[in-house]
Amino acid sequence: MVLKITGKAFTTSDLLVKYAKVIRDISKTHRVVVVTGGGEVARKYIELAREVGVTSNYWLDEIGIWVSRLNALILIGALSPLASPTPPRTLEEIVRSALVYPVTVTGGLIPGQSTASVLLQAAEALGVKRVYYFSAIGKVYTKDPTKHPDAKPLSELSASELKKIVEQKTLPGDYALIDSQALEYAIRSGVEIQVLDYKNPELMFEAMRGKNPGSRILPK
Amino acid sequence: MVLKITGKAFTTSDLLVKYAKVIRDISKTHRVVVVTGGGEVARKYIELAREVGVTSNYWLDEIGIWVSRLNALILIGALSPLASPTPPRTLEEIVRSALVYPVTVTGGLIPGQSTASVLLQAAEALGVKRVYYFSAIGKVYTKDPTKHPDAKPLSELSASELKKIVEQKTLPGDYALIDSQALEYAIRSGVEIQVLDYKNPELMFEAMRGKNPGSRILPK
Amino acid sequence: MVLKITGKAFTTSDLLVKYAKVIRDISKTHRVVVVTGGGEVARKYIELAREVGVTSNYWLDEIGIWVSRLNALILIGALSPLASPTPPRTLEEIVRSALVYPVTVTGGLIPGQSTASVLLQAAEALGVKRVYYFSAIGKVYTKDPTKHPDAKPLSELSASELKKIVEQKTLPGDYALIDSQALEYAIRSGVEIQVLDYKNPELMFEAMRGKNPGSRILPK
Amino acid sequence: MVLKITGKAFTTSDLLVKYAKVIRDISKTHRVVVVTGGGEVARKYIELAREVGVTSNYWLDEIGIWVSRLNALILIGALSPLASPTPPRTLEEIVRSALVYPVTVTGGLIPGQSTASVLLQAAEALGVKRVYYFSAIGKVYTKDPTKHPDAKPLSELSASELKKIVEQKTLPGDYALIDSQALEYAIRSGVEIQVLDYKNPELMFEAMRGKNPGSRILPK
Amino acid sequence: MVLKITGKAFTTSDLLVKYAKVIRDISKTHRVVVVTGGGEVARKYIELAREVGVTSNYWLDEIGIWVSRLNALILIGALSPLASPTPPRTLEEIVRSALVYPVTVTGGLIPGQSTASVLLQAAEALGVKRVYYFSAIGKVYTKDPTKHPDAKPLSELSASELKKIVEQKTLPGDYALIDSQALEYAIRSGVEIQVLDYKNPELMFEAMRGKNPGSRILPK
Amino acid sequence: MVLKITGKAFTTSDLLVKYAKVIRDISKTHRVVVVTGGGEVARKYIELAREVGVTSNYWLDEIGIWVSRLNALILIGALSPLASPTPPRTLEEIVRSALVYPVTVTGGLIPGQSTASVLLQAAEALGVKRVYYFSAIGKVYTKDPTKHPDAKPLSELSASELKKIVEQKTLPGDYALIDSQALEYAIRSGVEIQVLDYKNPELMFEAMRGKNPGSRILPK
Repeated sequence: MVLKITGKAFTTSDLLVKYAKVIRDISKTHRVVVVTGGGEVARKYIELAREVGVTSNYWLDEIGIWVSRLNALILIGALSPLASPTPPRTLEEIVRSALVYPVTVTGGLIPGQSTASVLLQAAEALGVKRVYYFSAIGKVYTKDPTKHPDAKPLSELSASELKKIVEQKTLPGDYALIDSQALEYAIRSGVEIQVLDYKNPELMFEAMRGKNPGSRILPK
Repeated sequence: MVLKITGKAFTTSDLLVKYAKVIRDISKTHRVVVVTGGGEVARKYIELAREVGVTSNYWLDEIGIWVSRLNALILIGALSPLASPTPPRTLEEIVRSALVYPVTVTGGLIPGQSTASVLLQAAEALGVKRVYYFSAIGKVYTKDPTKHPDAKPLSELSASELKKIVEQKTLPGDYALIDSQALEYAIRSGVEIQVLDYKNPELMFEAMRGKNPGSRILPK
Repeated sequence: MVLKITGKAFTTSDLLVKYAKVIRDISKTHRVVVVTGGGEVARKYIELAREVGVTSNYWLDEIGIWVSRLNALILIGALSPLASPTPPRTLEEIVRSALVYPVTVTGGLIPGQSTASVLLQAAEALGVKRVYYFSAIGKVYTKDPTKHPDAKPLSELSASELKKIVEQKTLPGDYALIDSQALEYAIRSGVEIQVLDYKNPELMFEAMRGKNPGSRILPK
Repeated sequence: MVLKITGKAFTTSDLLVKYAKVIRDISKTHRVVVVTGGGEVARKYIELAREVGVTSNYWLDEIGIWVSRLNALILIGALSPLASPTPPRTLEEIVRSALVYPVTVTGGLIPGQSTASVLLQAAEALGVKRVYYFSAIGKVYTKDPTKHPDAKPLSELSASELKKIVEQKTLPGDYALIDSQALEYAIRSGVEIQVLDYKNPELMFEAMRGKNPGSRILPK
Repeated sequence: MVLKITGKAFTTSDLLVKYAKVIRDISKTHRVVVVTGGGEVARKYIELAREVGVTSNYWLDEIGIWVSRLNALILIGALSPLASPTPPRTLEEIVRSALVYPVTVTGGLIPGQSTASVLLQAAEALGVKRVYYFSAIGKVYTKDPTKHPDAKPLSELSASELKKIVEQKTLPGDYALIDSQALEYAIRSGVEIQVLDYKNPELMFEAMRGKNPGSRILPK
Repeated sequence: MVLKITGKAFTTSDLLVKYAKVIRDISKTHRVVVVTGGGEVARKYIELAREVGVTSNYWLDEIGIWVSRLNALILIGALSPLASPTPPRTLEEIVRSALVYPVTVTGGLIPGQSTASVLLQAAEALGVKRVYYFSAIGKVYTKDPTKHPDAKPLSELSASELKKIVEQKTLPGDYALIDSQALEYAIRSGVEIQVLDYKNPELMFEAMRGKNPGSRILPK
């Protein structure tokens, strides 16, 4: 089970308690790898760094990555002793960790790569064909739903289609729903992405039973 | 030059810009090791973790440590390429880094130890006899100055004296001005602690010229 | 099961054979973490280093730590392949090792910290509420029993009480029965310390059955 | 100085002798980071792995990466003791190495990323605004010059333009001249790519003097 | 189960498919450690390095070692997720890996040591008393069989005997059937070497059942 | 400058003070790599381990290696901050350390290898053609001088000659003056071994000026 939790979830403890419970439940029957995003705190820290004069995207991304690792650490503490004691720092460490610990929680890995990409790379490395993607936008819409009231949710769409739509914003801390690099990994290795509303961690169980309470991005 | 900057400094960019400038200046003539505290963000993250159900002091401290590393990273980015690219994770890594890079910025190291202890341990390992301690309280007072208006500043006091005064609060994220463990390191290895007001990074230059614009904790 | 064996035990092979047997037995039903002290050899090596002109407490402590690791290695060899192949060098490595290997044997970790502190830190990190402490003094006495013939053994006492009594000698290789730093960890994380006579490794089984063939230091 | 040498160069020793000489010369006045490609041997090994039944893109890419490291090792041996003794395995290791050694030679880093991306990431991390790209195609053409005799060389073109042209082939070992991911790094961090003919290592000197004996990809 | 596969096997995929199958089968009941040789590719790369001007045996051996690791990686990919994700780089890593993963595949470790020595060292470290040695020469002969048609195969011979016969060629990439250093490890730790024809991986099963379809080198 | 100091030297502080002085002097003009032996303490610890039931040569050697590292640590402490802060654990770490620190002090590296072999391997890896070998026997004799009063010292002899003479005792802690494996490294990479009396560290200066106050083992 490979899943990603948006950084947005790491602000309210109620939600995190639910995620911890869901992961603990699944870990009884499956090995779990969780990728955590950076969220609001990442954005603030990157902003602070910019004001201090950090201009390099490398360092700004690094700061975002460390915030995502900090978020990972909260889940690790809450899941202890099920989870590997520190967030992996490379893809290889994720693979090693996933073979040894019931739960592995990781943040970002390298500058210039979204945590969505980490999710898909982990899936590829572990030979998993489906990932769960808890996102601020629980469904993919025909248009931007925050701007267009007539936007309609899509239950399925192809990754290549979405890739064309997605605006390729690659400034640190400003990735769209999902970036094209992540979608490329999905396509090249045939990984389906089940998008889910991050406010509802229990959707995981429904999705595992084959239902689709969000949107599916098909690897084609 | 071994110095500590309280986590409080990592909220306003203006102050950090000044610290970066001071460190850059000093690094022209001295190797610099900076220890960063966790501050308000550490406290908030630890609080969040507690709400999520993390009860172990080990994990709560770990979270505080990672926030202090995040603060270190902002300085590293601002000082690039002078500074070692990641915060050291062990005392040995601090020693190695200090021998190789002009500037080393580190956060906390292990649970149960304040960043003040890290400062004194680094001094001990590097054979330094004086450290600079930028603290929220820029001077040591006869009483708690926030409660007693008649508290008087002390220009010098002994570490053993202070150790008796200091209330030994050892819960994560709640260390006093300086904890007894840090003071023990100072005493056993004869390291003087120059306390300075964190709102005024330029005091560093005065202190380096032998002046005492704060308080001195003598190693006895 | 988290236990410490005083460095004194690492001079006579008969005793070590017994410890190896006890640990092997326990490892059939429990994960075991053993912390080894430095003992007489540590003291001699530190003395030699002093004579060679090493004055820094950092290096003197490091030497003591490496001797304790050497002691760990003898147990590791004797317990092979049950034990992790090298002594962990950080607290995090202890946690990782304890999750993977039936037995983990570790020496000291960082300068300025007794192996008793390592024991309590390991307990804290692993969420263990009781540790076994094989010491040269198998019981805590009302006075120093080597000097006062009328000293009486205590079956229970509080850590904070003991902390006051303990003379805080912090020079390398010269720690008292147990140091105040270790006791602080015990208090803050609620870990009971079962003191046992190091000449009698089999006391472990009695103590595990709930008996008290030594003294108990209660975490309050 | 950050440059990439196509894997194609690692088949004839004459060419490598020249590269070693050029790098040795430059290292007298500049720190040098060299990224090596995998070339024909990578392709063969990936093919072999496929025949053995390896289907995962992760492992196929890993094999390609290790061949590129092997190529790096030949240059390291030839440049010894100027070069860091092993190829870095992460971006962070590249940064560390570049601060310590006169020459750093690295291969690929992670699956799903071309060595061209490594080149641009290294530039970003090191704050370099220009990279040298020794490629099998020494100039960018208006059309594929191997198929269209009327293709014309371009002395300058924009990265975003090229990104649109480039066919996004992302199967391991089959990357185009330069992939879109690498171009994105160039754009977001303002890095110019000086394309050069790999058969002519001495073009490096011309290019360093500001001439353009190939094509320039501008970061816009 | 500790076995070595000559680098020669890493040229034809058919053979590797068989090895992968044999190892997968054995891993159901035994922990497996496989040491891979460098073979023809190693020789070519070392030759290339020599032409480029690498004269140090250290670097030439390093190159041979990395090719053997590349060969290890192909098996790792084919056996995924049974095998440890990267080839160990030290003897200690082999021991750790063998305790954690069903299959460990490793190449050479240090310059000046054949992969045959690695095989015997691994056996010693893991307490194994018998190793399987898939070699280009499937049997030990009274004379060099490629030169003397009247050479007779030996079903058993002593390691000390063989050690005298073996020409001690120690130039990188040019080790004989087995080198004297490897034989010394076998003698000192009492490890029997079962020589087998590398073209026939299934001989492994016969040999495991106690048969001798090659030659046995006895540790005396 | 690459030199080895027999473990015997690590018992009297007077001698070590002299070694520290000599190394400090040389480090002003040369990078220094020192390999330390295990000596009497190693032998005692190995004996203790045997009595505790450790039979594996791997673990017995490991224990000897750790004692040699402990000896290294004393020199490191005495030479601080000139020396790399911990003894390297692999050949690669020796190379890295030698490029960064004025002095590197290392003990043994891997089981089955004498510290004399480490000395020659280090020389090979660093491209050094001469090593200094402070040994309990300061000169090579025609016969064992402790048994034959008519034994005559040799000022020069060839490594291959010596190799034939040397009894190949390879049990842990029981290596002869120099073992055949070490001599093989010397021969294959053309390294001359200057044997010197360990009781007289100042002979180093004489030997560096081209004199031969001991014996020379020529690489042929």
